[in-house]
Amino acid sequence: MARRAIVGVMGAGDNARAEDVEMAGALGEAIARAGWVLLSGGRNNGIMDAVNRGAKRADGLTIGVIPGSDRKAMSEAVDVGIVTGMGSARNYINVLSSDVVIACGFGGAGTASEIALALKAKRPVVLLNCQPEGQVYFRAIGDGLVHVAATVEEAIAAIRRLLC
Amino acid sequence: MARRAIVGVMGAGDNARAEDVEMAGALGEAIARAGWVLLSGGRNNGIMDAVNRGAKRADGLTIGVIPGSDRKAMSEAVDVGIVTGMGSARNYINVLSSDVVIACGFGGAGTASEIALALKAKRPVVLLNCQPEGQVYFRAIGDGLVHVAATVEEAIAAIRRLLC
Amino acid sequence: MARRAIVGVMGAGDNARAEDVEMAGALGEAIARAGWVLLSGGRNNGIMDAVNRGAKRADGLTIGVIPGSDRKAMSEAVDVGIVTGMGSARNYINVLSSDVVIACGFGGAGTASEIALALKAKRPVVLLNCQPEGQVYFRAIGDGLVHVAATVEEAIAAIRRLLC
Amino acid sequence: MARRAIVGVMGAGDNARAEDVEMAGALGEAIARAGWVLLSGGRNNGIMDAVNRGAKRADGLTIGVIPGSDRKAMSEAVDVGIVTGMGSARNYINVLSSDVVIACGFGGAGTASEIALALKAKRPVVLLNCQPEGQVYFRAIGDGLVHVAATVEEAIAAIRRLLC
Repeated sequence: MARRAIVGVMGAGDNARAEDVEMAGALGEAIARAGWVLLSGGRNNGIMDAVNRGAKRADGLTIGVIPGSDRKAMSEAVDVGIVTGMGSARNYINVLSSDVVIACGFGGAGTASEIALALKAKRPVVLLNCQPEGQVYFRAIGDGLVHVAATVEEAIAAIRRLLC
Repeated sequence: MARRAIVGVMGAGDNARAEDVEMAGALGEAIARAGWVLLSGGRNNGIMDAVNRGAKRADGLTIGVIPGSDRKAMSEAVDVGIVTGMGSARNYINVLSSDVVIACGFGGAGTASEIALALKAKRPVVLLNCQPEGQVYFRAIGDGLVHVAATVEEAIAAIRRLLC
Repeated sequence: MARRAIVGVMGAGDNARAEDVEMAGALGEAIARAGWVLLSGGRNNGIMDAVNRGAKRADGLTIGVIPGSDRKAMSEAVDVGIVTGMGSARNYINVLSSDVVIACGFGGAGTASEIALALKAKRPVVLLNCQPEGQVYFRAIGDGLVHVAATVEEAIAAIRRLLC
Repeated sequence: MARRAIVGVMGAGDNARAEDVEMAGALGEAIARAGWVLLSGGRNNGIMDAVNRGAKRADGLTIGVIPGSDRKAMSEAVDVGIVTGMGSARNYINVLSSDVVIACGFGGAGTASEIALALKAKRPVVLLNCQPEGQVYFRAIGDGLVHVAATVEEAIAAIRRLLC
């Protein structure tokens, strides 16, 4: 049995920019079309909600790893909710469980922690339209694991290369 | 979108009894046939491996939440591996993520911790062929959340009632 | 530098029996007098609060590992609060950090999970006035790691032997 | 009982620069002299080992929250070791447990994750001789919680202000 690859998408919740939310929808759809499993932080807002909704438009399998202890705040577009009750400690699980981690858009401190934890765990990271200061910093500490993409197409191409 | 129910199956690894391993296979198959998602500790031995293999015989969706930080020790019959790197702290995630928790066979200390954590989190628990001392103890502390089953059929009937 | 031994005391919160709370105070005092560091779940009720208050009467060092994400619910008698924000997953940290684990009085599901996690991690456990059903069950699964005490004096004697 | 403040110091392990290790020793000593409890990641290398050794020179109380499941890799200068067995998920506990978080020197991905998790949890962060790219990035996402210090004296002054 060949295991399907898991692509983790991280990004802002309530504070996500409108253009990043729109991009997240297209990204989720493209991930599902490629046949990959989508994993995210699973919440019902911002990048998390949008990427899951996008994936369901293309009939993908969506996994949401949520910080709280019940499913009330989970995106309706998540198929399987992993309930951690561990707050931001679940960010570590998000990245360990992903074959590739995508940071989608201008993220805040939560997204920054996921990028950093991914690099610590030697997971490859694709920064898709990340703020310039973040690109500079994570490339500086990232030991060659950090890739930059400006469009969903570039991100998908990068994931494809990284999964080989 | 109606969320599919998640049934968590817990049980021994290397020390599982042969008869419990056989029962786990039948249990996994029945869970998949009922249309439920199977969640387990995901390792490639004992109850965990057997229940996932059973579920795949009936084409179920299998989620494995593993204690280590890579997928080497994961059952081949797990579709989606959640990698926690948290040792037995992942037992808390197993039970929080399950709508119903089944303890399958004579379990050891790991299974005991999952039953106890499930009760603490107010998840219903079905003890399927648990050792008698465990039945007595968990009923005593379980506040009406503990159910006992002697066969896979009884366990499935109990799950069905509990999911209503 | 010889490291001071850490004795973990686990027990019920709001539902603790009055006689167990009283015993916890005496236990904490005796642990501090013996020169051991006291570790507990750190909350401001039941066994946790009482054992810390007892230890401070004898000028002990008290560590509380709390489940929530702030210190509001922490016992005032805790010197150093470790804030986990991980709910009952912190029970794993409680037992891993303890050289010996004492379950004090009739515990509920939380205490049961700590006893089980301690046994899984091969930590010795002393059951001090545990309910009889628990004694029978944990001895059955405990692989020789479970010790029983009826009084604080017996518990202290058992800890002393186990720390040698 | 007035609780003593806990100052968390984060920094590189094996890859720490010699000048940062030296600074960590002076920082630990100054924290202990100020009467604060020192909390760190507790390992026996780099910034973690040096800051604990510094604090012990001034007779401070040192808490180490270690990622592994036993104490073998713990600094000898840690008084109380909290054993998490959770890998980098323990970084979340480090920052939640600290009243102020100091990032000491040029850190790698682990330190970056601690800074980000601290900001997410609304803990104030002092960057002491952090690489310039990190200063720029964390100020951009830090919502006013990020402070910069060039010397141990400046860091101590910043902590003093933040604890008021």
